[in-house]
Amino acid sequence: MQVGVIASVNEARADQFTHRTAIVIDVLRATSTMVAAMKAGAVSIVPAETVMEARALIRPGDVLGGERFNRKITGFELGNSPLEYRKETIEGKRLVLTTTNGTRAITKAMRAENILTGAIVNATACARAAMELRRDIVLLCAGSNDEFAIEDGLCAGLLLDRLENQCQHSFETDDFGTAMLALYRNRADKMLETISHGAAGRRLIKMGFGRDVEWCSVPDSDDIVPRLNGDALTKC
Amino acid sequence: MQVGVIASVNEARADQFTHRTAIVIDVLRATSTMVAAMKAGAVSIVPAETVMEARALIRPGDVLGGERFNRKITGFELGNSPLEYRKETIEGKRLVLTTTNGTRAITKAMRAENILTGAIVNATACARAAMELRRDIVLLCAGSNDEFAIEDGLCAGLLLDRLENQCQHSFETDDFGTAMLALYRNRADKMLETISHGAAGRRLIKMGFGRDVEWCSVPDSDDIVPRLNGDALTKC
Repeated sequence: MQVGVIASVNEARADQFTHRTAIVIDVLRATSTMVAAMKAGAVSIVPAETVMEARALIRPGDVLGGERFNRKITGFELGNSPLEYRKETIEGKRLVLTTTNGTRAITKAMRAENILTGAIVNATACARAAMELRRDIVLLCAGSNDEFAIEDGLCAGLLLDRLENQCQHSFETDDFGTAMLALYRNRADKMLETISHGAAGRRLIKMGFGRDVEWCSVPDSDDIVPRLNGDALTKC
Repeated sequence: MQVGVIASVNEARADQFTHRTAIVIDVLRATSTMVAAMKAGAVSIVPAETVMEARALIRPGDVLGGERFNRKITGFELGNSPLEYRKETIEGKRLVLTTTNGTRAITKAMRAENILTGAIVNATACARAAMELRRDIVLLCAGSNDEFAIEDGLCAGLLLDRLENQCQHSFETDDFGTAMLALYRNRADKMLETISHGAAGRRLIKMGFGRDVEWCSVPDSDDIVPRLNGDALTKC
């Protein structure tokens, strides 16, 4: 099984996804928030690329969530903090979500055979789900401000570690994947510290979202794997 | 001291180099070959971006060297193997060198205040020389086929390790630099193995250049640091 890794959204080309299972990674915070929303009982999540598109997609009973510049969007019910997604806000509802990088990354991966969303909080379950789809895999790190983000790299490395353990001899990755695997193995016992020192982590902590950064840095706190079916993500 | 890292030539933008010291890295093989050529007594090295430009730059007594698709160019005296650069071929002469990625990377970095070329073979000396120039530093990994190359990432990590040791508290890097430092620290005792399994390493070994890969993977075998002065690299 070949597992490729793309460093940030703006490096992704459509042909890299054809016939593959894509795992979209945006640890701070979109793909972590998706896990939180499903855990709290969201029925499905519709990713929208723009605020206008999100508003157009909304139906009675839906919840509108998302961020721009890390802040909740005016008129939206929820922002992009996983801690906001609790039973009382989301249970039994459909979520329409737009974020700066995460939802854009899902759109970039549209040519893939299957699209899953991965985060540190659901990494092992996500690797297992991707394996079971029996296709080559491409990990798309969303990044931040069009650049590589350390938390997405760490998550890619964690996924590669789990995939390698499960595939064993048939596992192959590219040069960037080799680097991300080594990054994870070097920093596995310092995930929160590493993420807190990264550009996005520092920015979020400064804005008062330190608890989000902590929540998003804990491996395998859940086994929910969102998967795209048509235009919405549902539990795998 | 701020140390930025760029993953491959095609990600580099001119403004990233302004007021900085650039270290251009192309471990397989251009910047390793430059060290070999200077060690064997080359007076200076003129990097040329195209074969035509290289031919135009040649003066009586110069040596014309370089590669395309890893092979020596027709009519050139030398290729891009560090092992070809010996006293009997290069001592006392000026070398005009064109390679697929390395010389292109030097051109990309032209806005920098200072340009040094770094490789695994001269890493510690190169880090020291860059420090002494007292500017922020940007490490430009040349990459291979417009993509990240593991050997350049390992070299960037090795340089970051030496820079951090020397600067101590004033050392800062970006998210990609943090990843490359962790890559190096995870693979420091398996440099040759890691590089031999990378895309460029495998390709070179298949073409019979396995000894080049070995030579280029040994840290600090030399303390020569090529530095651009006008249109030519000379010893720092």
